[in-house]
Amino acid sequence: MPRPTSPEIRVKKWDAGDWTDASDSVVTEEPLQLMLDGEPLSVVMRTPGNDIELALGLLYAEGVARSLDAIKQIRISAEAGETAAGVDVDPSIVDSNTIDVHLTAAPRRRPERSMISSSACGVCGAVLIEDLRRDLAVLEGGPAVDTRLLPSLVDRLRSGQGVFERTGGLHASGLFTPSGELICVREDVGRHNALDKVVGWLLLQHGLPARDTVLVVSGRAGYEIVQKSITAGIPVLAAVGAPSSLAVALSREFHQTLVGFLRDNRFNVYAAPERLMP
Amino acid sequence: MPRPTSPEIRVKKWDAGDWTDASDSVVTEEPLQLMLDGEPLSVVMRTPGNDIELALGLLYAEGVARSLDAIKQIRISAEAGETAAGVDVDPSIVDSNTIDVHLTAAPRRRPERSMISSSACGVCGAVLIEDLRRDLAVLEGGPAVDTRLLPSLVDRLRSGQGVFERTGGLHASGLFTPSGELICVREDVGRHNALDKVVGWLLLQHGLPARDTVLVVSGRAGYEIVQKSITAGIPVLAAVGAPSSLAVALSREFHQTLVGFLRDNRFNVYAAPERLMP
Repeated sequence: MPRPTSPEIRVKKWDAGDWTDASDSVVTEEPLQLMLDGEPLSVVMRTPGNDIELALGLLYAEGVARSLDAIKQIRISAEAGETAAGVDVDPSIVDSNTIDVHLTAAPRRRPERSMISSSACGVCGAVLIEDLRRDLAVLEGGPAVDTRLLPSLVDRLRSGQGVFERTGGLHASGLFTPSGELICVREDVGRHNALDKVVGWLLLQHGLPARDTVLVVSGRAGYEIVQKSITAGIPVLAAVGAPSSLAVALSREFHQTLVGFLRDNRFNVYAAPERLMP
Repeated sequence: MPRPTSPEIRVKKWDAGDWTDASDSVVTEEPLQLMLDGEPLSVVMRTPGNDIELALGLLYAEGVARSLDAIKQIRISAEAGETAAGVDVDPSIVDSNTIDVHLTAAPRRRPERSMISSSACGVCGAVLIEDLRRDLAVLEGGPAVDTRLLPSLVDRLRSGQGVFERTGGLHASGLFTPSGELICVREDVGRHNALDKVVGWLLLQHGLPARDTVLVVSGRAGYEIVQKSITAGIPVLAAVGAPSSLAVALSREFHQTLVGFLRDNRFNVYAAPERLMP
């Protein structure tokens, strides 16, 4: 019983001086209580739907669960109506918007409630990258991508989205084959959540690391988008918006091809251009 | 000694099939270690600059420090080179990107490391709003704003920004008088940080609650933007992007005028239209 992600509400529209009453779709944003082995871990503001993927993607990024074997059972609100092939899903939680991931063994590490805290301490970008070197591998190889294909991927991402065109309020994250076929698209009010959902989907498909894929994101490429996609082994990341300084540094360090400002038949390459042909 | 917020890097540009080598500005993103009374509280990914405002705005939103009297001293990295009138600032921290706020008394409450966690437990939007009712007051009165003024505020926000036009990577948050004069604009790689900096600036100016102001934000209006601006007493919020369902519910509950999709001489009003004239 997935809930609609764009409820209709009454609004007043103003257009060059004229007022009209109208109905408008807004994207649903609700808090998700994420629990690990019965203990509260974090609250994530997200668009309901694909909550199992979101939880798995988050735990994958944090190094808590790097394979499906690590998951004993997922308990989830009955109202979410979600299942996942290959995982024991128990829809018995009465409270809404709650998911509780039980592991087969104690986690490799239990993340801080504020997850980002665990990977920064010094604190500067260099320290952060130094920390990541312990966890992440340099992305070797990866696909050769036809540059002329890249601009079309944004249109394919948009056409793969459901709610976005109606509300303009959803970020999307889409995974493609090197020849431009859409493998998986996920949407969310939060940019990071949309990517976490894709990574969670990959985990459920036994598709990690995703060595032969291209990821396209609808927004900007900041530190966390790059970190999460490198962790998932994705060799090519293209963003419609701008990258940040730390995103560029991280991509260069781990040899991820980073494309920014992918729009209007143009783009910039910030790191590892060798994978782009010609 | 504020650092530049848009370092120049070498990139490859692709435009309809043609490659060129070029220099490009990217927005600086670095982690800030926020400490409270010497204890690590949170790490925030942010654009360096106005770190004192950012820290104060965050602590204000969390109810830790609601006036300058609550602040005994702020210790900050020497390299940040920041001071603030009316506050004892000690630039003696050797590590970079660190700020430590010392209070005059034990905090009203010590926020969780993951701050959002503290305000959601049930967990659904209704529970969240119920929790907020304990902390927030309904916004009474507030200015009458000329609707024809609103579209011009986005241009004024943009012209008040420094780096944004060059990189396209920075969000802005701008506070205006009801007649459209820019009071304060702050920029950051994170939407929430830009608003926290504005609120921190208001706290330093003894300007809270900001009862007679209009806030314009460059991105979307999600739950946290609305919650932070209501907490600061701002009666009119206008966003260039879309609002979320929870943002609309919160604005309606606390009687904040919420404008979305403010662009191209158009906008939608989602809550409390009475403040907009005619």
